[in-house]
Amino acid sequence: MSTTRTRLDPESRREQLLDLGVELLSVRRVEDLSIDALAEVAGISRGLLYHYFSSKRDFHLAVLRRMADQMFRLTAPAPDLPVADQLVGSLEAYVDFVGANREPYLAFVRAAAAGDEEYRQIYDEARAALTDRIFEHAGGDLLAGLGIEDSPALRLFVGGWAAMVEDVVLSWLEDARGVERRQLLDALAGSLASIGALATPA
Amino acid sequence: MSTTRTRLDPESRREQLLDLGVELLSVRRVEDLSIDALAEVAGISRGLLYHYFSSKRDFHLAVLRRMADQMFRLTAPAPDLPVADQLVGSLEAYVDFVGANREPYLAFVRAAAAGDEEYRQIYDEARAALTDRIFEHAGGDLLAGLGIEDSPALRLFVGGWAAMVEDVVLSWLEDARGVERRQLLDALAGSLASIGALATPA
Repeated sequence: MSTTRTRLDPESRREQLLDLGVELLSVRRVEDLSIDALAEVAGISRGLLYHYFSSKRDFHLAVLRRMADQMFRLTAPAPDLPVADQLVGSLEAYVDFVGANREPYLAFVRAAAAGDEEYRQIYDEARAALTDRIFEHAGGDLLAGLGIEDSPALRLFVGGWAAMVEDVVLSWLEDARGVERRQLLDALAGSLASIGALATPA
Repeated sequence: MSTTRTRLDPESRREQLLDLGVELLSVRRVEDLSIDALAEVAGISRGLLYHYFSSKRDFHLAVLRRMADQMFRLTAPAPDLPVADQLVGSLEAYVDFVGANREPYLAFVRAAAAGDEEYRQIYDEARAALTDRIFEHAGGDLLAGLGIEDSPALRLFVGGWAAMVEDVVLSWLEDARGVERRQLLDALAGSLASIGALATPA
């Protein structure tokens, strides 16, 4: 949790501070994340931090956005893989991300679920970005290959599938219950196709 | 939101007060639910309320337990129906319950998700009770009929299915997206069997 003082451009410095903020979420709730704590961990003055973040609230929102952006980037499907493997690969990257950032991720989910409108919006946009990509990339081709057409009804159920993935992955990381990683990924990927088929009556 | 003063035994009176508490969750968050507000709506003194609830916290926990109990009772499968219809019937009762109590239900979900340990426990126990019943009643026979055996792995995925049902039903109630009630229920019921099969490798 310490950082070497090196010359960085302001944008990189800001991102580095946000990464420290994400790390701090391992040990405290979003609302307890203070500029003071960040200043101490980053080894810089509070005054300088206010150069990067106009308020504690601004800092909190930026930390959550940073986590959502990282998750989105890290779970990007690999376009050179066969379609089914792209989906499994994205799911595996999601499992790895949540596994490596379990406490910050839970802090994020909880802050969003607690009803704060702006936190909720960041969370909803992150999930929408992840599921929209399914229609554009891997899963989209996968669903199209199964004769399942995009529709508002399908997106309703794919949103539910995303809720299931989050729930199962968080539970699995806590206690795998004898489920192998590969079995987990295959079952989650397979359920997207099943749910897609059920959501699209013949 | 008014109540007629009638002679009730203490247990019934307490339940009536808890139902008023659940109603109040339509317009305020759990943590803003005060003994004062309840006293005003119920038309009785604060002193008398402290006869039923030892503290505001005790009142909050009792209100959430009351809602969980109601949901469990109202969604009981009808044992005289064919197995598949029992599951659809339970799901329909769940949709009706959440539809009639959308704001209190959201307040419940949010209070639990925000990380309060005791709220979380009530929520987790409520969900566990609902999913355990699937193994004992309707869905259990349904899964058994499909050759799917109970296991910790299966319960992991059925927990995820419950998260999906909650997400889809809350979204559908907000915007049905052209999905008919019957289609919603059939897709949710069907996805339990699909997920059960995927969670149980041959």
